[in-house]
Amino acid sequence: MDELVKTGSLRLHWVESHMPVLMDIRKRFIDEQPLAGLKIGMALHTEAKTGMLAVTLADAGAEIRLASCNPLSTDDSVAAALREEYGLNVYAKKWESSEEYYANLNAVLDMKPDFIIDDGADLISMVHTTRKDALPNVKAANEETTTGVVRLRAMAKDRVLQFPVLDVNDAKMKFLFDNRYGTGQSAFDGWMNATNLIVAGKRLVVAGYGWCGKGVAMRAKGLGASVIVTEVDPIKAIEAKMDGYEVMPMLEAVKVADIIITVTGCKDIIRDEHIAVMKNGCIMGNVGHFDNEINKAALDSMAASKVRVRDFIDEYRMKDGRSLYLIAEGRLMNLAAGQGHPAEIMDMSFSTQALGIVHMTRHYQEMGNEVYAVPNEIDMEIANIKLRSMGVSIDTLTDAQIKYVTGWEEGT
Amino acid sequence: MDELVKTGSLRLHWVESHMPVLMDIRKRFIDEQPLAGLKIGMALHTEAKTGMLAVTLADAGAEIRLASCNPLSTDDSVAAALREEYGLNVYAKKWESSEEYYANLNAVLDMKPDFIIDDGADLISMVHTTRKDALPNVKAANEETTTGVVRLRAMAKDRVLQFPVLDVNDAKMKFLFDNRYGTGQSAFDGWMNATNLIVAGKRLVVAGYGWCGKGVAMRAKGLGASVIVTEVDPIKAIEAKMDGYEVMPMLEAVKVADIIITVTGCKDIIRDEHIAVMKNGCIMGNVGHFDNEINKAALDSMAASKVRVRDFIDEYRMKDGRSLYLIAEGRLMNLAAGQGHPAEIMDMSFSTQALGIVHMTRHYQEMGNEVYAVPNEIDMEIANIKLRSMGVSIDTLTDAQIKYVTGWEEGT
Amino acid sequence: MDELVKTGSLRLHWVESHMPVLMDIRKRFIDEQPLAGLKIGMALHTEAKTGMLAVTLADAGAEIRLASCNPLSTDDSVAAALREEYGLNVYAKKWESSEEYYANLNAVLDMKPDFIIDDGADLISMVHTTRKDALPNVKAANEETTTGVVRLRAMAKDRVLQFPVLDVNDAKMKFLFDNRYGTGQSAFDGWMNATNLIVAGKRLVVAGYGWCGKGVAMRAKGLGASVIVTEVDPIKAIEAKMDGYEVMPMLEAVKVADIIITVTGCKDIIRDEHIAVMKNGCIMGNVGHFDNEINKAALDSMAASKVRVRDFIDEYRMKDGRSLYLIAEGRLMNLAAGQGHPAEIMDMSFSTQALGIVHMTRHYQEMGNEVYAVPNEIDMEIANIKLRSMGVSIDTLTDAQIKYVTGWEEGT
Amino acid sequence: MDELVKTGSLRLHWVESHMPVLMDIRKRFIDEQPLAGLKIGMALHTEAKTGMLAVTLADAGAEIRLASCNPLSTDDSVAAALREEYGLNVYAKKWESSEEYYANLNAVLDMKPDFIIDDGADLISMVHTTRKDALPNVKAANEETTTGVVRLRAMAKDRVLQFPVLDVNDAKMKFLFDNRYGTGQSAFDGWMNATNLIVAGKRLVVAGYGWCGKGVAMRAKGLGASVIVTEVDPIKAIEAKMDGYEVMPMLEAVKVADIIITVTGCKDIIRDEHIAVMKNGCIMGNVGHFDNEINKAALDSMAASKVRVRDFIDEYRMKDGRSLYLIAEGRLMNLAAGQGHPAEIMDMSFSTQALGIVHMTRHYQEMGNEVYAVPNEIDMEIANIKLRSMGVSIDTLTDAQIKYVTGWEEGT
Repeated sequence: MDELVKTGSLRLHWVESHMPVLMDIRKRFIDEQPLAGLKIGMALHTEAKTGMLAVTLADAGAEIRLASCNPLSTDDSVAAALREEYGLNVYAKKWESSEEYYANLNAVLDMKPDFIIDDGADLISMVHTTRKDALPNVKAANEETTTGVVRLRAMAKDRVLQFPVLDVNDAKMKFLFDNRYGTGQSAFDGWMNATNLIVAGKRLVVAGYGWCGKGVAMRAKGLGASVIVTEVDPIKAIEAKMDGYEVMPMLEAVKVADIIITVTGCKDIIRDEHIAVMKNGCIMGNVGHFDNEINKAALDSMAASKVRVRDFIDEYRMKDGRSLYLIAEGRLMNLAAGQGHPAEIMDMSFSTQALGIVHMTRHYQEMGNEVYAVPNEIDMEIANIKLRSMGVSIDTLTDAQIKYVTGWEEGT
Repeated sequence: MDELVKTGSLRLHWVESHMPVLMDIRKRFIDEQPLAGLKIGMALHTEAKTGMLAVTLADAGAEIRLASCNPLSTDDSVAAALREEYGLNVYAKKWESSEEYYANLNAVLDMKPDFIIDDGADLISMVHTTRKDALPNVKAANEETTTGVVRLRAMAKDRVLQFPVLDVNDAKMKFLFDNRYGTGQSAFDGWMNATNLIVAGKRLVVAGYGWCGKGVAMRAKGLGASVIVTEVDPIKAIEAKMDGYEVMPMLEAVKVADIIITVTGCKDIIRDEHIAVMKNGCIMGNVGHFDNEINKAALDSMAASKVRVRDFIDEYRMKDGRSLYLIAEGRLMNLAAGQGHPAEIMDMSFSTQALGIVHMTRHYQEMGNEVYAVPNEIDMEIANIKLRSMGVSIDTLTDAQIKYVTGWEEGT
Repeated sequence: MDELVKTGSLRLHWVESHMPVLMDIRKRFIDEQPLAGLKIGMALHTEAKTGMLAVTLADAGAEIRLASCNPLSTDDSVAAALREEYGLNVYAKKWESSEEYYANLNAVLDMKPDFIIDDGADLISMVHTTRKDALPNVKAANEETTTGVVRLRAMAKDRVLQFPVLDVNDAKMKFLFDNRYGTGQSAFDGWMNATNLIVAGKRLVVAGYGWCGKGVAMRAKGLGASVIVTEVDPIKAIEAKMDGYEVMPMLEAVKVADIIITVTGCKDIIRDEHIAVMKNGCIMGNVGHFDNEINKAALDSMAASKVRVRDFIDEYRMKDGRSLYLIAEGRLMNLAAGQGHPAEIMDMSFSTQALGIVHMTRHYQEMGNEVYAVPNEIDMEIANIKLRSMGVSIDTLTDAQIKYVTGWEEGT
Repeated sequence: MDELVKTGSLRLHWVESHMPVLMDIRKRFIDEQPLAGLKIGMALHTEAKTGMLAVTLADAGAEIRLASCNPLSTDDSVAAALREEYGLNVYAKKWESSEEYYANLNAVLDMKPDFIIDDGADLISMVHTTRKDALPNVKAANEETTTGVVRLRAMAKDRVLQFPVLDVNDAKMKFLFDNRYGTGQSAFDGWMNATNLIVAGKRLVVAGYGWCGKGVAMRAKGLGASVIVTEVDPIKAIEAKMDGYEVMPMLEAVKVADIIITVTGCKDIIRDEHIAVMKNGCIMGNVGHFDNEINKAALDSMAASKVRVRDFIDEYRMKDGRSLYLIAEGRLMNLAAGQGHPAEIMDMSFSTQALGIVHMTRHYQEMGNEVYAVPNEIDMEIANIKLRSMGVSIDTLTDAQIKYVTGWEEGT
């Protein structure tokens, strides 16, 4: 076994021992074979936690193909170990070019999957456009992330969507934990690894105060930053303000920012007008899904030169003498420069994927071409197993209390 | 003008200058008279912020009657000033007996209101039971708090509810701010005033991790407590754990608790079995709606004696020698021993009430006997005025961004 | 027993049960009578915790006289109860005029005290200037607070000081807890009581980042404020910055401040130039020792009018239309509008006073006319009792560990 | 230039641009040549920030030799670049055996240094024992860390120390920042890199609540852990408690710990008795100076087997079935598994080293064989440059204020 496979194997076994819910489900799947005979095409960040989801689905009887949903998010050692040790079909490597990225997604679709597990909706989008040949065989899909769900809702609204999709992102056991605590911690895993710079005492701008942005801001504060939030939604803006952060338009924020982290799901958050007045020395990173939140074309065109000054950092030397820095080419810095979300967090997200895909195999025929919520039973099942695995006991309502909270007659 | 009226008047003017959204609405209402000729019966905590809501509705043309929704939550100076300075009909005083409490609610219903604004659903409940004579004239109602909404949903489910109710509690501009930041701060306003004891270094148990409980826990942590959360919902329990709190059953928590704050909306959170093993010296307070979260009957029956040891604290001397303490007779300690939610918070909640009741006057005829959500437009209108009043500017999506977030074709 | 005495008596008994270390010392003092026959003149904030110190010293055999060290910090109910129930000589009332304030200090000095316990050094200063008649009898003194210690060090440096003084303020068991956690919480006790306004979402300026300022800033952050620190010491300024706060000159800070809290021990922190550009609506409070941190003369001369708009708040209506607010006439707002430091905190501070004054009675003759540190043994004795009273156990070094940490030969 | 040199070179240039104070000093040193003709022997963690200190001293005219002060803390790429690009004599590599470690220290001493810069006091200790041949030439030394200072004070107390030592560790501009914010962040850089596990929701035990322990606990809380502190000092224990942490003996803590981080400067913090009852799955790491805080011999003897399960993690499979994990062989996990303290922090520490060693060259002859404090002027100079480099302005005392704070006559 070569060194790469060995490293990947260790990483897979390490997360295995920290994903108790998924392993509980896997054990049951091995017995029950709920996916026997089905082909599942997956586009997820190909690292250790995803590896254990793929292994779980394969153990449940599925034939799977796995590509990455981002050109920089593959852990090559894990990809190697999944191939060598688990015999899975993995089409992914780190630092993929755009051509390689799409070639890999196409390789997944070449299997003509029955079900798709997508992250960012690139695979689903291709099935509806360039790869319509794969469409007829697809029964349903799961979508992992906010960005993908936004795209899919737009497709459903335009009546373009051709099969039902399960919105895994908005399951409570996913977004409440993955988006907040997962993104929150992993953003700074990427930061520390890429920069070896201090967070404390820095002005850190978080663009977007959704669940992910809340997580990033919370951890930035926890690491000692002075946090500024930018938003387009007035309610979220007031929340950010009440949470003790400064709130201002990006055009003001860039003038005082030491660090900017975008996490909006929208594009062009940092564009020409912002770059023009950005503070010298500012370091930008992105943890939103796509690498278009920071406009790299604008940076390129406004810079006199670009130099890679550290493994994951490009310095843009501007014509006016300022230096601006970009982490991981504006791609998800928590996956490109860090190791992605912690295993215990992905345990919840990928358990939702595993139970969710089985749910879809059983119910897709009753469903329309819409985006569907994850049933509450799945949330509760995962929550109960997770809580037990954490060694935590909680209270139970007494009969009198159940009667009280479902009644209305008792008052003051 | 006597001293009491003068104090109340100062308090009303003070909050007036810190409720910019409500005052903006009031100005418009004075011009437009949207409630002209209508009778509105109100049961809310009769203190300064509520006073300004009542004044706003009266200025909008309504005839109003106001009682308190809790026997301990009246600010007598405000009640006096509302009567003397604003000529309002107020039926409330501090330390009401149960008889006085209900007499006051009955006095409100005696006006045969067209609309009701309720907090905890006591008034609405009476209209459906003991005061059915008032029912025919009621067109609709607003409900302010979680506890009331739970009761009303139960009534709707039982098909008992006889008119549409607007769920003001679950408006974003209400629960996101009032329940978290309002309850969070005011709980400790009550605590500090009642006890003059330190929070830092204490083990503080928060029963219930809903929005209010999240607020109380957040502030307890911010004041230096070591926080323990009790829950019955496994998802909320995991959230509490991930937020850095200990989570355990109440039966374990009471053994180590220095302070217990209940905020569940359920009854009997602290009952015989908990009292039996509670740590000596433990101080209990409640910020949930009703005074049944801590079972006072159980305390009374298990205690050898009860002594009022400070203005708002009763010491229960247990037969085994332990001393247990209860703040404000187990009633909302933030209103009984403190001054209630800060004015800027109630500005959002009561603006929602004001716009909400006008909405109901215009739409009740199209509605069923159900619990309705506050329309998004009301949330957005309040958010925009609030943000402006805070002097905060935010970003706006560009056309290209709007196209992007409503489209689905752009990907990696 | 009249109502005032009864309230004061309850407050004294309440804190008694929350000052376990002082009560442990008191018990010992009753047996040992270490202060028998001595006269002790005290100038401290006359409220419940101070009351229990006075009672402890009286129980130790001393004859005591007690005045307040601030015209607004007396709790009249406690003063009454100390007179009626404990038979102590108390010269203090709330809202003293300047004349009354000094008359009371003079009444204390009329007893010709053997020892002085001072807070802010007014009493000691008088003995060296206007009341030199009292000087010959004074053997030594204790000083409670930073401001007083600064004055006394200046006196010692000028060779003016005529007897040894114990610097109680800088005992670890005092400043580490009283200045940080005590001031931190009580500042917001005063704030909430005086204003009923929210802290979350406000820009709160803390002037001074000493131990007290650190405490105020920490709690402001814990309550959701966006905190700005002003400093004159570059090292403390960097600390504030690294703690996640913004740091800027006061002239910039006043332009964006919603709340300003001064806690410097210096004068004229807010003066003409700051008032001239202060943000409309700004609310100022002080928790530093003297009422000269915010220049009231400047406010008076620049205002068109001044109105008391709430029990503890004066509104200054400026000629240019701005309204600026001052809490408690710029005096210690935690004592004037709140109830002062929590009992458990003062337990440590006043235990240091009690053991410290006995230490001085035994050692003053060997001492010069200097400011002396509290001996480490006193700190350790108090710490050990306190820890036990909190129910906390800790580790003990093994013999091998003691050898290791006192040796130097073991390395990598 | 080979790949390793290139990586190291990038890292050196990166930190160069984030150490403005040291670079300011370096510029001055290049002009003034304050160390011309002197030989300086250094034992510090050989990574990029240390590299820039070595470069600065060489640029000041010194001949330097550099070894690592820990067998796991070398960044091989930096060592290579220092040799190739800067022509420095570097004796260090990652994963040194104990023999290699001491061979490297001996190589440094072979130069017969005039001055020593040490970290942990191994070099100084050798000069007094096994390498007495080097002693005659040594004029003085600087010591970087708490552990080293403790050893050196013991040597001075035993009258063994043969030259003056500057206690760089206790300079304000060092310990206030390096120990708290540096150790705090870098501990979790190491953690995230080594484990890819979540901190939020874990029970994390911090052994030792000195400045480093305070930093680790603060960041653990900021990342969402439930923190337990163990201590032997009752005052620090009360501080930890008041900061909202649980405090208990290690023997209790290990039973509930998910993570243990030792940072005491003492040995055998985790020993047989603790390992025997430690919770299954517990992960241990150390950020104290030596690798004896967690007793590895005890782990080895009590384990059935030991397996490297991830790059920096050893799993000890206990005979009773439990698995316990140790990060980086119990050596400084922030340097072994992470990249050490952030550059901006080391900027302050190493500026203190640079100015400190020049100070020693000028004053050693007037000094005794004692441990000396860094002069206040050095702290202030560094603070002022640092503040300016951060773009922060602060207030200055007016003449009237200076008079006030140095006088004593103004009072209430």
